[in-house]
Amino acid sequence: MKLIIFDDINCTEGGVCAAKGFKANGIHCGIGKNKEKNDLAVIYSDKPCKAAAVYTTNKLKASPITVTKENLKNGMAQAVIVNSGNANACNADGYEKAQRMCELTANTLGLAKDDIIVASTGVIGQILPVEPIENGIKPLCDGLSYEGNSAAMTAIMTTDLMPKECAVKVTVGGKEVTVGGMLKGSGMIHPNMATTLTFITTDAEISNELLQRALDDAVKGTLNRVSVDGDTSTNDMACILANGMAENTPIKHEDGDFEMFSRALRCVLLNLARMMARDGEGATKLIECGCYGSKTEKIAETVAKSVITSSLFKAAMFGADANWGRILCAIGYADAEFDITKVDVDISSPKGSISVCRNGAGVEFSEKEAKEILLEEEIKIVINLNDGNGSAIAWGCDLTYDYVKINGDYRS
Amino acid sequence: MKLIIFDDINCTEGGVCAAKGFKANGIHCGIGKNKEKNDLAVIYSDKPCKAAAVYTTNKLKASPITVTKENLKNGMAQAVIVNSGNANACNADGYEKAQRMCELTANTLGLAKDDIIVASTGVIGQILPVEPIENGIKPLCDGLSYEGNSAAMTAIMTTDLMPKECAVKVTVGGKEVTVGGMLKGSGMIHPNMATTLTFITTDAEISNELLQRALDDAVKGTLNRVSVDGDTSTNDMACILANGMAENTPIKHEDGDFEMFSRALRCVLLNLARMMARDGEGATKLIECGCYGSKTEKIAETVAKSVITSSLFKAAMFGADANWGRILCAIGYADAEFDITKVDVDISSPKGSISVCRNGAGVEFSEKEAKEILLEEEIKIVINLNDGNGSAIAWGCDLTYDYVKINGDYRS
Repeated sequence: MKLIIFDDINCTEGGVCAAKGFKANGIHCGIGKNKEKNDLAVIYSDKPCKAAAVYTTNKLKASPITVTKENLKNGMAQAVIVNSGNANACNADGYEKAQRMCELTANTLGLAKDDIIVASTGVIGQILPVEPIENGIKPLCDGLSYEGNSAAMTAIMTTDLMPKECAVKVTVGGKEVTVGGMLKGSGMIHPNMATTLTFITTDAEISNELLQRALDDAVKGTLNRVSVDGDTSTNDMACILANGMAENTPIKHEDGDFEMFSRALRCVLLNLARMMARDGEGATKLIECGCYGSKTEKIAETVAKSVITSSLFKAAMFGADANWGRILCAIGYADAEFDITKVDVDISSPKGSISVCRNGAGVEFSEKEAKEILLEEEIKIVINLNDGNGSAIAWGCDLTYDYVKINGDYRS
Repeated sequence: MKLIIFDDINCTEGGVCAAKGFKANGIHCGIGKNKEKNDLAVIYSDKPCKAAAVYTTNKLKASPITVTKENLKNGMAQAVIVNSGNANACNADGYEKAQRMCELTANTLGLAKDDIIVASTGVIGQILPVEPIENGIKPLCDGLSYEGNSAAMTAIMTTDLMPKECAVKVTVGGKEVTVGGMLKGSGMIHPNMATTLTFITTDAEISNELLQRALDDAVKGTLNRVSVDGDTSTNDMACILANGMAENTPIKHEDGDFEMFSRALRCVLLNLARMMARDGEGATKLIECGCYGSKTEKIAETVAKSVITSSLFKAAMFGADANWGRILCAIGYADAEFDITKVDVDISSPKGSISVCRNGAGVEFSEKEAKEILLEEEIKIVINLNDGNGSAIAWGCDLTYDYVKINGDYRS
């Protein structure tokens, strides 16, 4: 799919290896049911990094989340170890296993245990086999390279069908600064936290406080606005490593440099978020819902999320059925303040645009034209509440037979 | 499916015609796309009735809801007119059309316009054709009979596959009192209001205030605890008509008689709610989730609803996959206060019961046994938060290919 790159930003290749000094690798070590797919990844920075992260809001937090939180207390990290095939969640020995993963990685790379960010993704509630990791850690780290982003990417995928990487370059403090990242996520996706596993690297020099702020802000309008199925995972995390190797004037204040860095980060996360929605389990379409004219941004966000989360709307999109009544219905049950009799709704895609609702009531449109528009792979729903200047965009996908198929028997 | 009838209550036949003095009828008049199915129903009481209702919380309320609210301001009604095939929602002329339906019914039955409860169900945002109703109202009312409940039932069904009727008899104030009802609802079902169209009739003599209170209480623990797809309809309503023809000592206080009447009403709504969940669009299974041991009933309700609403859990149930991690995940993201490390989960059906989780962590179980249990059509999920004495039960269904099929092209 086409990336959305802001005008003042340049796109680049390399994902998590795009920024200076970052290596990565991914191998198959034998954790999950899939006998061939890469299932263990490492990201390594040549220099120690400032690090920041946001985590799932699910009460049930997987053990790697707990361990990463502990390790990031000092705001520093130098490597990431992550496995797919097993979430290491709801296991009595999960904490020890996550610790063990850090220990193995630290020993192999010559780092301290608390320099490691650890993450897992896969089935919840099955004991994580640690032997494959013990056996795999040396070849994994031996294979680290500045071009290892793709190998790492495939190792963090579960039901993902497409890799999700994005990297950009901007000028910050007189130097070229790169921000790159990768993301896994396809199901159990709902916007109420840093959805999915997301790893971002940058060579920017930036204070811990501002790194965290930039991440929080960027996640809010991107990852937290994606919904595939309304389910919030136990293992979600988005983290960023900044190793300062761009040698820019350090970002220490909320000035123009911070703004530029934040835009680059937002650009990366925006594209990763859109890729995630498009690759939602079983999805055939990316649905973007923009809500405008609201009293506050929060209202617009609530309304846009309500629409992209509606199963009925999602199923209608799969069927390319312009059943706009379902859009209005989902707007109507959104828990937010506005006047339903002022609401306008348009539907568009590269094939064109149609108005389907004005002032909360239907307007005539050509069903043939609507069908043509909805048969496209990227659909936009544009809602105007005609009530103010707030706005928000949320991303989702259609609900298909394949979603049911994928999730009817995920474990076997 | 098997009804659940409380020990001190007797089941009876006849749905909305079970109580003394209630007639009903249903005919095909030609409103919807279906050329044969009944689409217009009437319920009539030989005597004026106390009436009470609860309505959808969706901001977008269909016009019949607005008109019914107005008509019930005096707490009295004597007939119900309801069509399927068109929701009469989001139409500029919706209010007039709903008024017209009342007028036609009132004129034909010799009643006042505000004696009529009006309801519609079907596609949102298409102009309601009123001519078929004008032509059909006389044969509809001419055919009213004390055995017309089935004809009326089929006339209110949309994607429903099975009729949903229930009636019971209890002794109240020295007399036999009957409460009976019918319900339509299969999709756009989410527990945050009186879900779906539900019509209850009773021959009890009861004050308006207590009738409303009994209805509110009963709906809370029954209809509002069902979720099929998380979508809250624009047309939802549950109403009750009480004509006093049982000649019981009038229920005017919250005494034993009120309690008995409320139990009977709850019993009827409980069974209608379970039928609705079982008949959820595309559903192959009824899922009952009981949450116990919570600090408050509200916490238990939030947790139980979170589980039955999870798309991932629902898809796993369709696949008869004992993926209990998804149950725990959905418990974990429920917006309620409890300690996830104290949570126990069991899964049961007529084939047996297995423990899958103790203290928030998985316990070993036989996958073979689990599969046998989950292949049944009625599955129970039992959650113990081990944190108090509160409890609540919620009902839902599995997520299947057919849900997607039904909703991918609902309008054509």
